[in-house]
Amino acid sequence: MSQQASELFDNFQELTPSEFFRKNKQMLGFTGKIRSLTIVFHELITNSFDAAEEAGILPEIKIDLKRVDKDHYILRHSDNGPGIPEDYIMKVYCTMFAGSKFRNIQSRGQQGLGCSGCVLLSQMTTGEPARVKSAWEVDGELKGADLEFKMDVKKNKGMLLNRKSYDPKHTGVCIELEFKDVSYSLAEQGAFEYIRRTMIGNPHAKIIFRDPTGHKYIFNRAADMVPVLPKEVLPHPRGVTADDLIFMAKHTDKRRFRSLLTSSLSRMSNKRIAEIEELTGIDLNKRPKDMKWEEAEAIVDAFSKMDFMAPPTSGLIPIGDDQIEDGMKEILKPEFIAATTRKPVTYRGGVAFIIEAGIAYGGDAGRLVNDQRKSEIMRFANRVPLSFDQGSCAITEALKSIDWKRYGLRDLENTPITVFVNMISTQVPYLSTGKQSIAPEPEIIHEVRQATMKVARKLQKYLRAKKAAKEEAMRSKIFEDYVPVIIRESAKLAETDVPEFQEVLAKVTRRSLAELLGENPDKAEEEVEVEFASDLDDAIENDDNKPEETLENME
Amino acid sequence: MSQQASELFDNFQELTPSEFFRKNKQMLGFTGKIRSLTIVFHELITNSFDAAEEAGILPEIKIDLKRVDKDHYILRHSDNGPGIPEDYIMKVYCTMFAGSKFRNIQSRGQQGLGCSGCVLLSQMTTGEPARVKSAWEVDGELKGADLEFKMDVKKNKGMLLNRKSYDPKHTGVCIELEFKDVSYSLAEQGAFEYIRRTMIGNPHAKIIFRDPTGHKYIFNRAADMVPVLPKEVLPHPRGVTADDLIFMAKHTDKRRFRSLLTSSLSRMSNKRIAEIEELTGIDLNKRPKDMKWEEAEAIVDAFSKMDFMAPPTSGLIPIGDDQIEDGMKEILKPEFIAATTRKPVTYRGGVAFIIEAGIAYGGDAGRLVNDQRKSEIMRFANRVPLSFDQGSCAITEALKSIDWKRYGLRDLENTPITVFVNMISTQVPYLSTGKQSIAPEPEIIHEVRQATMKVARKLQKYLRAKKAAKEEAMRSKIFEDYVPVIIRESAKLAETDVPEFQEVLAKVTRRSLAELLGENPDKAEEEVEVEFASDLDDAIENDDNKPEETLENME
Repeated sequence: MSQQASELFDNFQELTPSEFFRKNKQMLGFTGKIRSLTIVFHELITNSFDAAEEAGILPEIKIDLKRVDKDHYILRHSDNGPGIPEDYIMKVYCTMFAGSKFRNIQSRGQQGLGCSGCVLLSQMTTGEPARVKSAWEVDGELKGADLEFKMDVKKNKGMLLNRKSYDPKHTGVCIELEFKDVSYSLAEQGAFEYIRRTMIGNPHAKIIFRDPTGHKYIFNRAADMVPVLPKEVLPHPRGVTADDLIFMAKHTDKRRFRSLLTSSLSRMSNKRIAEIEELTGIDLNKRPKDMKWEEAEAIVDAFSKMDFMAPPTSGLIPIGDDQIEDGMKEILKPEFIAATTRKPVTYRGGVAFIIEAGIAYGGDAGRLVNDQRKSEIMRFANRVPLSFDQGSCAITEALKSIDWKRYGLRDLENTPITVFVNMISTQVPYLSTGKQSIAPEPEIIHEVRQATMKVARKLQKYLRAKKAAKEEAMRSKIFEDYVPVIIRESAKLAETDVPEFQEVLAKVTRRSLAELLGENPDKAEEEVEVEFASDLDDAIENDDNKPEETLENME
Repeated sequence: MSQQASELFDNFQELTPSEFFRKNKQMLGFTGKIRSLTIVFHELITNSFDAAEEAGILPEIKIDLKRVDKDHYILRHSDNGPGIPEDYIMKVYCTMFAGSKFRNIQSRGQQGLGCSGCVLLSQMTTGEPARVKSAWEVDGELKGADLEFKMDVKKNKGMLLNRKSYDPKHTGVCIELEFKDVSYSLAEQGAFEYIRRTMIGNPHAKIIFRDPTGHKYIFNRAADMVPVLPKEVLPHPRGVTADDLIFMAKHTDKRRFRSLLTSSLSRMSNKRIAEIEELTGIDLNKRPKDMKWEEAEAIVDAFSKMDFMAPPTSGLIPIGDDQIEDGMKEILKPEFIAATTRKPVTYRGGVAFIIEAGIAYGGDAGRLVNDQRKSEIMRFANRVPLSFDQGSCAITEALKSIDWKRYGLRDLENTPITVFVNMISTQVPYLSTGKQSIAPEPEIIHEVRQATMKVARKLQKYLRAKKAAKEEAMRSKIFEDYVPVIIRESAKLAETDVPEFQEVLAKVTRRSLAELLGENPDKAEEEVEVEFASDLDDAIENDDNKPEETLENME
């Protein structure tokens, strides 16, 4: 039974990333039929948006989902982006951990896993090849390629099966994949809801979606301009670790520490270099290859003591509160809406990020659970909806920590609100490979709380005014109902005729209606009381009355 | 601003797994100071257990955690396992996606990421090399190597810095790693609690732990036998997909479909082969390389129509209900305990698994929150505690779906219970790379519910009996308090002397005390009532009494 070490290691193997994820597809988010399809939509839409925006193109995506059989679909996804040059097509779709996005830039995708994951899932469930038509421009010339390929998981590479040329009309990519064991659903975590949320986070995009019943949904733009393209920014000194410096030093072509630092980090100048030398006592003319861990640590320590300007914000392009409001209005038709965009700050010392939050109340806000509208939380990272793993997400954690009663809401759960939170960053700290939740860094939680509390206060103001108006209306109603009765009874007691009071009452209630609509309610209320008292006296002294009619009029 | 496709792809790169995880260490579970250290403990303990058990050795681990400075520790972890042959040491600790565990065997580790992840974290936070002393046996001869190395993340390989020989006394591995930005904590998700839970799931192991204050904890074995070694089992036909068959066919050295099937799958015989040929019409004498997707699908479809014996259970070794109870008793000292081990079943058609559940009530069960004991859920997979990401885990989902009121508990949250659930499988469907939650497959949820409801029913029985005893005691108390009063008042009304009743009452209450302790309470209760009625009549007819004294006695 028992084995020696040498036998135990007989079958020691090394896997390629594709092999690894073939055995662990749930780590790419492919778990469950509904979720798997949503993740496919997510990966493809995300890539199309990033590519289009980098090329300065307003994204327009066409998605066609055909049902072949139960849990069996063919998906065609095409975009109007810049396309993929032929040499890179199979790398993008068949090589895991490969991509053009490993830069310090705000983009939706970051990991070189998304598209290849979709191809892997398609292949694993149907054995069918992927078909990609790509059209791209080289020196003003439009080129096109139409490839059919499979993924060789043992090699983490594509295997070309068929190649055709074609004459494209414009740039873009169209991919066709076949899936089994996935399912299209209208549920909250389904593909349709994913598109809907995508539109809230990306009001500048257009998506035309033909669902498996053949119904065509056209999600139009709520805004007609390409978002400002985020710039690639150098990492901020406060955001680098000793390990980062060592890694940079090892793989740089610079000849000196000083040039390595000024060329690899933002906010770095000769003055700064002098400051570092003074603080650390290290001669920064040394060669990067000779950098020792202690030196790297000393430099990082010096960074923490130096005053730097905040990271350049040109790298971070938020959606903006107006656009968030537009997006939410378009989709939710709420009774009340507020949004806010916070100033850029940093987490882990130097990774810049921006939190945006919006809150919508009433209308289609919230989600319908057994005929009751409950709250709905929409989490986004770089405009991408996060549909799963909400439990461990910084956004959920922050929202749960807010004392909602302070904002006049019963609790977070049982209120017809949609809370929108978006994190913008060059480096979103995802908790899982499926990119569905954000690590609960304290600074992120703080910012989400601040942003949400700000819009919650606005909602509270609105709800208070609404409640005050309602109460005022109720007081008015009571006033209208009882005054005639009191007058009549007073007249009876005084054994006089019931006086003419209708005109006065109408005047009074009109006044209080005016007050409902606004200006200086406290003062107005006082005045009403004064008038009421004096007019009533006057009224009682008059003698003509038509109580029945009046009561009817009042109703 | 805008870029052409060709420029966008200028910086297209391919990352190694190490580079990828260096940029995404949170995907290995390294997020937060406390969690990071817990994950390190988890990975090292897990590997030591697996290795020792495979070699038929009762695991004994020594862990020494030294505090160097705030958030800065040196960890030394040594085991008595079979050791790692020198050629594999750096592969185990520096090459990601490499390992000996990619087999269909129940083991704690599965992914070839754990140990190398710890080395990566150490290197990223301190720049220090790892030091590993390993001793292994070759043909009865004990060999030893003492290596110091770093990880070359660009190459996903180790870089040897120093090598010494040493003369080992016994086999085993000792690794020393230095960490910054981690923190030792006694919190629920901290390293100490991780060890405590590990002991509940592994009563056959011994762990000696010296904490940063120098305090030495010795967790002794509650059971003195090595768990039966799980056998590697061939996958069950119901558990393979068409993609699996294609993959096997592509990488086999067999010459025929038939031999591929019989050698790669369990429960496969010549009779089965004939059945498949009949059902599919495929000639199974074909060469594996020629297998088409349609054929693979047809074979999988045939599998689903055939009657197979369940997967061999020799591959699954549960902890066992007795051992779970022993483990929980040892650690929790509860007032009540029950455990159960379910029969093996399958998920996703053919992956066998076993669910075990235990429930402990009272004593140290539950967790202390603001001086109140609340419930505590301990999730395990192949005996390994799962400390994080509980929100999305199948176990949590299943437990939440149980109607706890039916079992006499207020709810899952506010009851002083510890619920233990362990999933045993050759293939635990983890949701994240950090291996902290189980995918909510319907069959898994069903089994967790069944197992937990069974132990909950036992707890309910116990709580009912306890409640009945309490109520009986209360009835008894009322009886004792009021009988003297009634007797005195009756005597007054009848204008007779108060009779002697103490002896009779004592007799009656003694009886009911006896009933409290147990046998046949329903019948006993009836008897009490009968006796009460007749004795009272008798008592009233007697005449001597000392009411004041009696009342005092009663208090």
